[in-house]
Amino acid sequence: MATTAREPRAPHEPDPAPGRVVGIDPGLNVTGYAVVEPTARGPYVVEAGVIRPRGDSARTMGDRLHLIHQGILEVLDAYPPSALALEQVHSHISHPRTAILMAHARGVIVLAAAERGVPVAGYAASRIKKTLTGSGKAPKEQMQHAIRVELGLDQLPEPHDVADACAVALCHFQIARNLRGLGGA
Amino acid sequence: MATTAREPRAPHEPDPAPGRVVGIDPGLNVTGYAVVEPTARGPYVVEAGVIRPRGDSARTMGDRLHLIHQGILEVLDAYPPSALALEQVHSHISHPRTAILMAHARGVIVLAAAERGVPVAGYAASRIKKTLTGSGKAPKEQMQHAIRVELGLDQLPEPHDVADACAVALCHFQIARNLRGLGGA
Repeated sequence: MATTAREPRAPHEPDPAPGRVVGIDPGLNVTGYAVVEPTARGPYVVEAGVIRPRGDSARTMGDRLHLIHQGILEVLDAYPPSALALEQVHSHISHPRTAILMAHARGVIVLAAAERGVPVAGYAASRIKKTLTGSGKAPKEQMQHAIRVELGLDQLPEPHDVADACAVALCHFQIARNLRGLGGA
Repeated sequence: MATTAREPRAPHEPDPAPGRVVGIDPGLNVTGYAVVEPTARGPYVVEAGVIRPRGDSARTMGDRLHLIHQGILEVLDAYPPSALALEQVHSHISHPRTAILMAHARGVIVLAAAERGVPVAGYAASRIKKTLTGSGKAPKEQMQHAIRVELGLDQLPEPHDVADACAVALCHFQIARNLRGLGGA
């Protein structure tokens, strides 16, 4: 076998210590990622960036998926997380073609997580917005503000794919924190 | 790296000798595959079957994608093909949710092909029907008849996922044959 599968870390149990989270914004052209860790002063972005398959090595969809898969494995190996968080793909999407192409990228990202035994958490876009701003219909500016405040940054992370990856990681953080709070009460 | 990437076999050049084709019908629940080879008496199914992620090892989407990816790599390693053929996912699909889920499976299948340097050919459903029956709107029975006749079988391959995998492989065969015919004229 070409793939090395580690034992899953009990992905169906509630996460006991959320620790490090990798947030991903999947795309065949640009995939954003953000490695976020808890600190005493709040969540902190340890590492973030984009995987941008381009040039001769990214001519086919297969080439692109290969580069995305490799890139995510590298992130997971460099910063082994307790969870990988990404947006759910909706059925009631207004651009099915875009969603279907994106789902190819999402597939190899979820595969990479499974190969490394990292549990995957999917969040609806509205849940991410509601968790970060209090409103599931928050406009972009409000989301950008929440990301900056939550991460204690003066500037919004760029490009927007990285900001979106931060947002889904922060959403996972907050939901996991709330779950622990309820569990401890 | 966990993945072993071989040098691509010039996937953008026309296929010089179609040889063996692996046809795939992707799905998160059932993925059908068919290994079809040219013989003097026409195309022949060397091996066919389904990858059906089930049970405790297939609880999450990641588990399923992992099993599908492994299964396809095993087929490609056991029967190295000159091409992998599968249906295109359409944008004007009536069931976007199903198409999006299927695209996750499609992503890890296309990845497996890229990892093994196998060119991928995608065909629209209507093209597969037209190539096999002469009509892009052929009903199911006509397609089943064409698959049986083309493969010289008394019975249609079962389950239908295998028959669909045979159909897309046969479509690739026929189109590659016609291309060679034109090239030689």
